[in-house]
Amino acid sequence: MDVITSHSNPKIKQVRALRQRKGRLDVGLFIVEGIRPVGELVEAATSGAANAFSVQSIYYAPELLRSDFALALVADQAARGVACQAVSAEVFSTIAEKDNPQGILALGSASQPTLADLSPATFPWGVALVSPQDPGNVGAILRSIDAVGASGLLLLDSSVDPYHPSAVRASMGALFWHPVVAATFEDFAAWARQHGYQVYGTSAHGSTEINQVLQYRHPLILLLGSERQGLTSAQAEICQGMLRLSMHGRVTSLNLAVAAGVLLYDMQAKPRAMGV
Amino acid sequence: MDVITSHSNPKIKQVRALRQRKGRLDVGLFIVEGIRPVGELVEAATSGAANAFSVQSIYYAPELLRSDFALALVADQAARGVACQAVSAEVFSTIAEKDNPQGILALGSASQPTLADLSPATFPWGVALVSPQDPGNVGAILRSIDAVGASGLLLLDSSVDPYHPSAVRASMGALFWHPVVAATFEDFAAWARQHGYQVYGTSAHGSTEINQVLQYRHPLILLLGSERQGLTSAQAEICQGMLRLSMHGRVTSLNLAVAAGVLLYDMQAKPRAMGV
Repeated sequence: MDVITSHSNPKIKQVRALRQRKGRLDVGLFIVEGIRPVGELVEAATSGAANAFSVQSIYYAPELLRSDFALALVADQAARGVACQAVSAEVFSTIAEKDNPQGILALGSASQPTLADLSPATFPWGVALVSPQDPGNVGAILRSIDAVGASGLLLLDSSVDPYHPSAVRASMGALFWHPVVAATFEDFAAWARQHGYQVYGTSAHGSTEINQVLQYRHPLILLLGSERQGLTSAQAEICQGMLRLSMHGRVTSLNLAVAAGVLLYDMQAKPRAMGV
Repeated sequence: MDVITSHSNPKIKQVRALRQRKGRLDVGLFIVEGIRPVGELVEAATSGAANAFSVQSIYYAPELLRSDFALALVADQAARGVACQAVSAEVFSTIAEKDNPQGILALGSASQPTLADLSPATFPWGVALVSPQDPGNVGAILRSIDAVGASGLLLLDSSVDPYHPSAVRASMGALFWHPVVAATFEDFAAWARQHGYQVYGTSAHGSTEINQVLQYRHPLILLLGSERQGLTSAQAEICQGMLRLSMHGRVTSLNLAVAAGVLLYDMQAKPRAMGV
């Protein structure tokens, strides 16, 4: 078995470069680390999930990787022609993000859909985030989208990369099963209007407290502003409804991922009305 | 005005030491950074909020701090005898955690209550976290506790410090207005039994999906396990009810702060029954 033991091996340098956004954009690859996330990527690649993923290569440290499931997965992927490279535990620690790594990571690629690929038939309800700042929030919101059975996520005017390692990790694999589409706010507004989506915005000053909502109209987009600024008044103008969460203390808002989760569970629990 | 311009000034070294837990424990101080959080600390210290806070000192950079509110706050605190120390912008950048700092931070201290200080009269409903791992989650949950009007937070068998800079920041000041009590799980269980609290645990296999809950019994504790492991079966045994959130996709759980937020908003919205 060919085991890489040098930190300066060109393949190892390539993996480290993918920790930076520029590195990911240059080659169209991202890193997935840990047994469960790699397993989800492999399954998504095999089953042809939303974003058409493929596994480009796998790096593993035989000294660290003890899981029978993971070792069988590596053997199976190698048999399918995926480059599976053994590295020393020491070299693995230089490409792993976490302390005490499990000893496996994969490089994946995705062909992401665009707004033109989405319509109420395939994307009946989802979330749109305007200029989110925190990749951990983006990943946690994808996890909640998966949990409530919503369709996917739109990132509007966003500089956050959904393949940032923190977003991949926080999504717990949900990233591989739901379309994630980057678009401008302007294109989003035109697309939503064209397809008759009901856009529900959120604001501390929203006219409707969610406990007053009896039903949500579908197809539906939940539109959330950035962590710092929320929605601008121009962005709020395209919404058919403005929702607010009751605030009983001193804070005037929730963490973005928490707010999205509370709203998604309310939308999941209440009756749905179709059409306008 | 006496302005510190040296990185190696002993006071500046002390502030940097407070970034580490050991530094905070050694001297009983924690850092609060930014205009709004410092303002909340000062107001809590002045009004005698839950955890009996005091402001030990303030560091500010006149070159950076432009807010009239913040400048007046510094002048007022100085007049009240709080040590307010000007530092150069360059020195401030070595004690600030964030890029582009606003130019103000405070060192605070708190006398935290213990379980013996809490009872249903003063703490009618709250959250207990067993061994949380992420200080950002702890802060975000405090923010949600404040938003729904719940009482406070119990940290059980916890190695997370609620005064970790990430927790302070994520709480958006809520930390200063609600009791945060550290205790062992065993002491918590005895305290909850003694006072007749209804303890609602959470689990993917909980017997009651929250949409089936018609009312919650108070006084109430929402008990959540750690990000990785959830509640053990021994911990679940002390609960009067085990709740679950519906999961419609592939993930089997939510981010801890998101789960707490969804459950707290459900508890906030539904009728309350008193007593057993």
